[in-house]
Amino acid sequence: MQLLDRSDAGGIAHLHLNAPQKLNALSDEMLAALQAQIDALAEDRETRVVILSGAGKAFCAGHDLKQMQAGRQSEDGGRAYFADLFSRCAKVMSGLQRLPQQGLAQVHGIATAAGCQLVASCDMAVAAEGTRFGVNGVNIGLFCSTPMVALTRNIPAKRAFEMLTTGQFIEAQEAERLGLVNRVVPQDALETATRELAETVAAKLTAAVKIGKQSFYDQMSMDLDAAYAFTGANMVENMLWRDTEEGISAFIEKRKPDWA
Amino acid sequence: MQLLDRSDAGGIAHLHLNAPQKLNALSDEMLAALQAQIDALAEDRETRVVILSGAGKAFCAGHDLKQMQAGRQSEDGGRAYFADLFSRCAKVMSGLQRLPQQGLAQVHGIATAAGCQLVASCDMAVAAEGTRFGVNGVNIGLFCSTPMVALTRNIPAKRAFEMLTTGQFIEAQEAERLGLVNRVVPQDALETATRELAETVAAKLTAAVKIGKQSFYDQMSMDLDAAYAFTGANMVENMLWRDTEEGISAFIEKRKPDWA
Amino acid sequence: MQLLDRSDAGGIAHLHLNAPQKLNALSDEMLAALQAQIDALAEDRETRVVILSGAGKAFCAGHDLKQMQAGRQSEDGGRAYFADLFSRCAKVMSGLQRLPQQGLAQVHGIATAAGCQLVASCDMAVAAEGTRFGVNGVNIGLFCSTPMVALTRNIPAKRAFEMLTTGQFIEAQEAERLGLVNRVVPQDALETATRELAETVAAKLTAAVKIGKQSFYDQMSMDLDAAYAFTGANMVENMLWRDTEEGISAFIEKRKPDWA
Repeated sequence: MQLLDRSDAGGIAHLHLNAPQKLNALSDEMLAALQAQIDALAEDRETRVVILSGAGKAFCAGHDLKQMQAGRQSEDGGRAYFADLFSRCAKVMSGLQRLPQQGLAQVHGIATAAGCQLVASCDMAVAAEGTRFGVNGVNIGLFCSTPMVALTRNIPAKRAFEMLTTGQFIEAQEAERLGLVNRVVPQDALETATRELAETVAAKLTAAVKIGKQSFYDQMSMDLDAAYAFTGANMVENMLWRDTEEGISAFIEKRKPDWA
Repeated sequence: MQLLDRSDAGGIAHLHLNAPQKLNALSDEMLAALQAQIDALAEDRETRVVILSGAGKAFCAGHDLKQMQAGRQSEDGGRAYFADLFSRCAKVMSGLQRLPQQGLAQVHGIATAAGCQLVASCDMAVAAEGTRFGVNGVNIGLFCSTPMVALTRNIPAKRAFEMLTTGQFIEAQEAERLGLVNRVVPQDALETATRELAETVAAKLTAAVKIGKQSFYDQMSMDLDAAYAFTGANMVENMLWRDTEEGISAFIEKRKPDWA
Repeated sequence: MQLLDRSDAGGIAHLHLNAPQKLNALSDEMLAALQAQIDALAEDRETRVVILSGAGKAFCAGHDLKQMQAGRQSEDGGRAYFADLFSRCAKVMSGLQRLPQQGLAQVHGIATAAGCQLVASCDMAVAAEGTRFGVNGVNIGLFCSTPMVALTRNIPAKRAFEMLTTGQFIEAQEAERLGLVNRVVPQDALETATRELAETVAAKLTAAVKIGKQSFYDQMSMDLDAAYAFTGANMVENMLWRDTEEGISAFIEKRKPDWA
């Protein structure tokens, strides 16, 4: 049994966190397995969408606390290890956002701390009814400083502040209302609903979705003129593709596009 | 019949996209007509609010795809034409935001691609029940890169990403919930509701609304101290106007202000 | 009777605006009293949470308009006085956000103009049912330029624009939906609900909540890599505290942490 299962079908890679006895904790080994997949996907021209899910009762409960405590045994009390750990974790989180593929979280059970950050770091998320989300490190004296980065880029400021400082959980419906997940479905429909969303995106012209995702996050922090200059240049390139010429012609002629 | 009708009453300019057979597409001609009005309004000291609406079944369905395809006939395959087109379109969109007047979209039917961008680029929007919004260029292989700029400055990230990559439409109520429109009214109340909102704003002290809009978008990207220095200076100027002195006196004396 | 009452209990400082006959207006004296408390709290290592509430019918109705009008009597028509006033006011508002303590607004009645800015400038807010919020300076010819800074960092753009240019109020439930307040409770539960939220935060490891708040607002405007470098360094420091080591051990051993 592998720590991180991968199955591929129809241009969709499904990554399945598979350490249910540890609530799919982001241990050194799990982070390494995720980073290896991210590195592979970055070069992968066939895969269009990535689904991320978890085995067992939880999507992901954050870092592996026992392993972190063991990290204190070095001469520096763990300082170098922790610095490296949070750097590796941030690389995974930002790596998901920078993938050429669209990242889709399939969330059930609980998603806490770095597990909630994982949801926030995906481009989209589908949650099962009853899923609970929290950035609850504060309850054990470890403020969720890095999960905060992803969370505050998803939901309104005052609600993010509340989650971070009270450690309290929010339910799936609330997570949807705030913007942390795209939709909530019954538990037994979770896999199907996530796959349908993935297939919808995978059926689009790959290059078009890719050029869109590449600029989605970057343009948000630009001023208006810079954002329009940047995205306008992308639209010019996009217009010059043969497949886009065909796509527009097909639309005008009311037929299906003949895309390779 | 003009491509873009304009009627003026009570300090409110009503621009009416009038190419219903083309679903009010933003053709070269329509963009030129809009830019001409924006240029005129930028110098116009009488007009306080601008309403933007569309004739026929749709508010606006985006670019004129037939005209875009025809643009490929040049030696460069359309590159220069497309670069110019997206530049002209961005100038219209950002021009609406920079108008000294408040821009109000009166939306019905559908608002798609650059038509949805037009809604997002107005300062406020009123929608009829049943209106559908989409940034659906991805369906024909042309990612809505420039509409994304306006959309992501209106609604939460994950929902914007979903609209852009799935091409799926959202209904008016959802658009309101997400922040893309201010309110939803029955179809037969759309014109009245929009006009009432316009009249409410037009009845304010023009210079005060103008100084507010001028800094609204700019201050958002500043850090807190810079934003307060900028807007604080505006409040000092605002306080020194004779009409503001009168407005405050009238409020204290519980009477109507005597504004010219 | 003092203009600004303070009572302390359980690490929670309760500041109570006490000028009910003036609807707790932010007069020169009230701003000075608030600034004095902010200065004291900035050095205060015992206090963990600050609650801000108002006496009488309103939480706070903004600036003291009579005092502002009197400020016009100088040779420069008030220019220097107004510049100083808005600078002092911005210092109070940004000072609340920069406090090492968590700031919690307990809001009832009305919160208008700089009073609404006060709510937006707190980290969290609890409102009584029936509370009304407005940035209505535009109604008297004085655009709420500085309140806009805080408001647009709390709620979606189009709704902020509407409140600022129409001067219309929103109800508590709407304020919650938009993100201006965290929760709405019946009037007679307001004090208890606010105190419970304050006590929840005050019961956490103080240093952890403090390190979180210090970076909460700053990291939001950073790009992703810078935000992760900044917050990652905070997590390393946080991990090296003895109390955090104890907190994690206690969690693993399913017992209460032994925090001093």
